[in-house]
Amino acid sequence: MATFKITIAYDGTGFVGWQRQARGPSIQGVIEEALSALDGRTVAVHGAGRTDAGVHALAQVASFTLVRDLDADAVMRATNARLPASVRIVSAATVDAAFHARHCARGKRYAYRILNGDVPDVFARAYVWHVRAPLDVGAMNAAARQLEGRHDFAAFQASGAATITTEREIFRIEILTTKNTNEGLGAGRELMTVQIAGDGFLRHMVRIIVGSLVEIGRGRRDCRWLGRVLASGDRRLAGPTAPAHALFLLGVDYPSDVLADEC
Amino acid sequence: MATFKITIAYDGTGFVGWQRQARGPSIQGVIEEALSALDGRTVAVHGAGRTDAGVHALAQVASFTLVRDLDADAVMRATNARLPASVRIVSAATVDAAFHARHCARGKRYAYRILNGDVPDVFARAYVWHVRAPLDVGAMNAAARQLEGRHDFAAFQASGAATITTEREIFRIEILTTKNTNEGLGAGRELMTVQIAGDGFLRHMVRIIVGSLVEIGRGRRDCRWLGRVLASGDRRLAGPTAPAHALFLLGVDYPSDVLADEC
Repeated sequence: MATFKITIAYDGTGFVGWQRQARGPSIQGVIEEALSALDGRTVAVHGAGRTDAGVHALAQVASFTLVRDLDADAVMRATNARLPASVRIVSAATVDAAFHARHCARGKRYAYRILNGDVPDVFARAYVWHVRAPLDVGAMNAAARQLEGRHDFAAFQASGAATITTEREIFRIEILTTKNTNEGLGAGRELMTVQIAGDGFLRHMVRIIVGSLVEIGRGRRDCRWLGRVLASGDRRLAGPTAPAHALFLLGVDYPSDVLADEC
Repeated sequence: MATFKITIAYDGTGFVGWQRQARGPSIQGVIEEALSALDGRTVAVHGAGRTDAGVHALAQVASFTLVRDLDADAVMRATNARLPASVRIVSAATVDAAFHARHCARGKRYAYRILNGDVPDVFARAYVWHVRAPLDVGAMNAAARQLEGRHDFAAFQASGAATITTEREIFRIEILTTKNTNEGLGAGRELMTVQIAGDGFLRHMVRIIVGSLVEIGRGRRDCRWLGRVLASGDRRLAGPTAPAHALFLLGVDYPSDVLADEC
């Protein structure tokens, strides 16, 4: 009997999201099926957080316990052999039985990718939000400062979501402009990446923040508007929810001693 | 009546290749349909070269003549509005009536992408050849030198292909190792790109060259083997044909005065 912590990369296209659901394939579901086949019993997998339908992950974290006596490398290899090509365990480690991927998480990092320009990129189109109107990155970065810190983010939560508290802390929001080299092909295009780190995120929170920042970048709203939306706690005042297919969970952060101690 | 030169980017996934065929959608076919609808008559499009089923292009070049009096920008916009999202005209210009994308072409540049490592990349998987065995880039580059220059490339042509001459000139082959930043996401992976430039290429030539270089990179063949394969003219002695989905037509080169003069 051993508890494992795994890091998972997935292309969320075609999945109903992280969480197991009756209406279609989920990341949690395909991993639980692979691990259950391996362990000869039903294995429950706990993810650090739920990602929505179509959202991707470079490094989602999950934990689970196996009865069979296997080392972490063997678990990773055997599970990857059973997973669809769009889901891959990229690292695995044995951890203390008290480790729980969601309860122990102290922070999450997301990236949202925007291709800003006239002509769409035929290769990146499944993974970027193509915005034709010119965006003012300076205005977006200035406005984003107002969201950093501990606030009630009720205005940036999907309507109808039920959460005990809508208070969260955003450690940092930064909009970076990177030259997209098309991964070794050398064809340069401007890619905008909204990087957000925080202690936790409400349902659709990153996507509503990005949708609101794009309103500012397009010049439809001024910088101070975002502060008023935050103060209002009213979802209807914020910008639209940006599409899911351009959002990536970059990583989950844990206290440094989490592998040894309870959390 | 005006002749146009267009540059086209396409994701070749799901297409039967550049050339119009009865058995499925082709890039040439969807462009001809869009232009024919625009011009109110059947428009024939001449591509600089055929790409195989599944092969992509960052900058394929094609030419055609329209009866309707439209400027290049209007043709580009109207055509893009009718094309599937996987095919995009990225630039357009009016040219001399004597211009022909295939006859005037003096060179083509291709890139072939290899992800060398244990774990596949869930996002790049549609656009790279994943080779698990460690590759010796130095040995591949050294061997590639033997293919540069003017040679009979019969050993590197798909069996059964009928060509008048199998002599071609390779200007340069270079295997580059680039850090793949996952286009702004910052997750670094080693990506290998085989860059090949030449005056023209036989059917499957780039893919058979890459398949042969990988045999050398894996240590299955030594450096001098490639020269012997070249001298033999025998397709059976060369390496396997590398998969199509990792090959990109990077660009087509024309004499600098080609837009003004006949070629």
